[in-house]
Amino acid sequence: MNIKDTKAIKEPRITLVGAGPGDVDLITLKGLKALKSADVVLYDALVSEELLEFAPESATKVYVGKRSGDHSYSQAAVNKLMVDYAINYGHVVRLKGGDPFVFGRGYEELDYAASYSIPATAIPGISSSIGVPGLQQIPVTHRGLSESFWVVTGTTASGNISGDVYEAAKTNATVVVLMGIHKLAEITEIFKKEGKNKLPVAVIQSGSTKKEKVVVGIVDTIVELAAENKISSPALIVFGDVVSLHPQFQPIKEFYDLVAEG
Amino acid sequence: MNIKDTKAIKEPRITLVGAGPGDVDLITLKGLKALKSADVVLYDALVSEELLEFAPESATKVYVGKRSGDHSYSQAAVNKLMVDYAINYGHVVRLKGGDPFVFGRGYEELDYAASYSIPATAIPGISSSIGVPGLQQIPVTHRGLSESFWVVTGTTASGNISGDVYEAAKTNATVVVLMGIHKLAEITEIFKKEGKNKLPVAVIQSGSTKKEKVVVGIVDTIVELAAENKISSPALIVFGDVVSLHPQFQPIKEFYDLVAEG
Repeated sequence: MNIKDTKAIKEPRITLVGAGPGDVDLITLKGLKALKSADVVLYDALVSEELLEFAPESATKVYVGKRSGDHSYSQAAVNKLMVDYAINYGHVVRLKGGDPFVFGRGYEELDYAASYSIPATAIPGISSSIGVPGLQQIPVTHRGLSESFWVVTGTTASGNISGDVYEAAKTNATVVVLMGIHKLAEITEIFKKEGKNKLPVAVIQSGSTKKEKVVVGIVDTIVELAAENKISSPALIVFGDVVSLHPQFQPIKEFYDLVAEG
Repeated sequence: MNIKDTKAIKEPRITLVGAGPGDVDLITLKGLKALKSADVVLYDALVSEELLEFAPESATKVYVGKRSGDHSYSQAAVNKLMVDYAINYGHVVRLKGGDPFVFGRGYEELDYAASYSIPATAIPGISSSIGVPGLQQIPVTHRGLSESFWVVTGTTASGNISGDVYEAAKTNATVVVLMGIHKLAEITEIFKKEGKNKLPVAVIQSGSTKKEKVVVGIVDTIVELAAENKISSPALIVFGDVVSLHPQFQPIKEFYDLVAEG
């Protein structure tokens, strides 16, 4: 990368912006303002490309998409690219799906920027963990059903299921599992071992976008339902009594009430 | 309330909008668009009044603020007001702090609207639970430090500390306690009983606003630090090793490293 001699050299700075779960309109005003002043935008796989239209036409837009199984750029490469662009072009907006700090490795990027003394800030985004169930009118908390929610990842750095999933399955919290859809069977087994076979579960694919799909069931049935409905990544899983509030849960509830009576 | 005879009667509808943690710019574009088409705005205590300027001048704006110890309107009264306004004026935007479903009683409002067959939707907001630590560059998750985060309330319907706080204190999750600042001493005792005296803790008051204050310490010191710094409601508490990434934690870390060596 060369410094553009024809332009005044701008002060390097970096803004991590949470783009939200997918719907363009779920970005914040603050995120939008940052985009409008971007010289470079580095954007992830789950970010709507329509958002790039808010950045100046002259801004350089670089896809650094990372999805499980598709590591086009390593985190180290993204970090380096981000700093190089900032030094050479000025304001880099690092546009990330959801919120930068919810399994987004946002702090690693801030830390890398700091190691080059480049000022860096982060603008929160709508985390899919709360927003995606919410758009389906599944509240992560609800009086009488849930006094807390626990957000875990199905895919840790080591590739194993996080120990926190085993702990979460023991509690009364609403449990939201991100990046766990390809391990749905294993994860439901963990809940079964806690005797939670009848706990309501929802799986939501591509929440907030046109490709959104939702499947509602219980621990015992969700793997089959997800397969029947050809649910694929990206998708999140919500375990908890709050899922019983979803309209699609009503017939399931009636079926089990009937069974209980019979 | 009377139907305005001079106007065409509009179809009643209700939109719950999450306004985010306080900074006006942290509302989503989608929330803003809803506000712009509001006939009535019912807004909460922790919502910035500047947001009301995005609503049409002709829109009726009603403060229904609820804060602990200041129940100007009961939830039942808010529900009734919301439905009455929708029937008489059309589009009611119910503007709520944070996200409507994070201890926001959003589902109760949707459910009440449904009982009158009034179409109601919810637009997510930036939950202070993630966004407020994030603005302080405290990531709720971070590789090597935290594979999950658990959001709990310090104030349940019964007035007691939620049983989930006791469970959360036993785990490796980052624990974010909302509405718990007036019970900080009690809550830290729960973590002490789990032997977590040296666990990093941050208390953030009025996050994202001009009144923002942050105090960083450990379980053993945070009560005194919060008192010294006159922290008051609204404030949230973050327990977890991720708090050690905050710049103010560095001297604390050095102090304890020194003690360990000495």
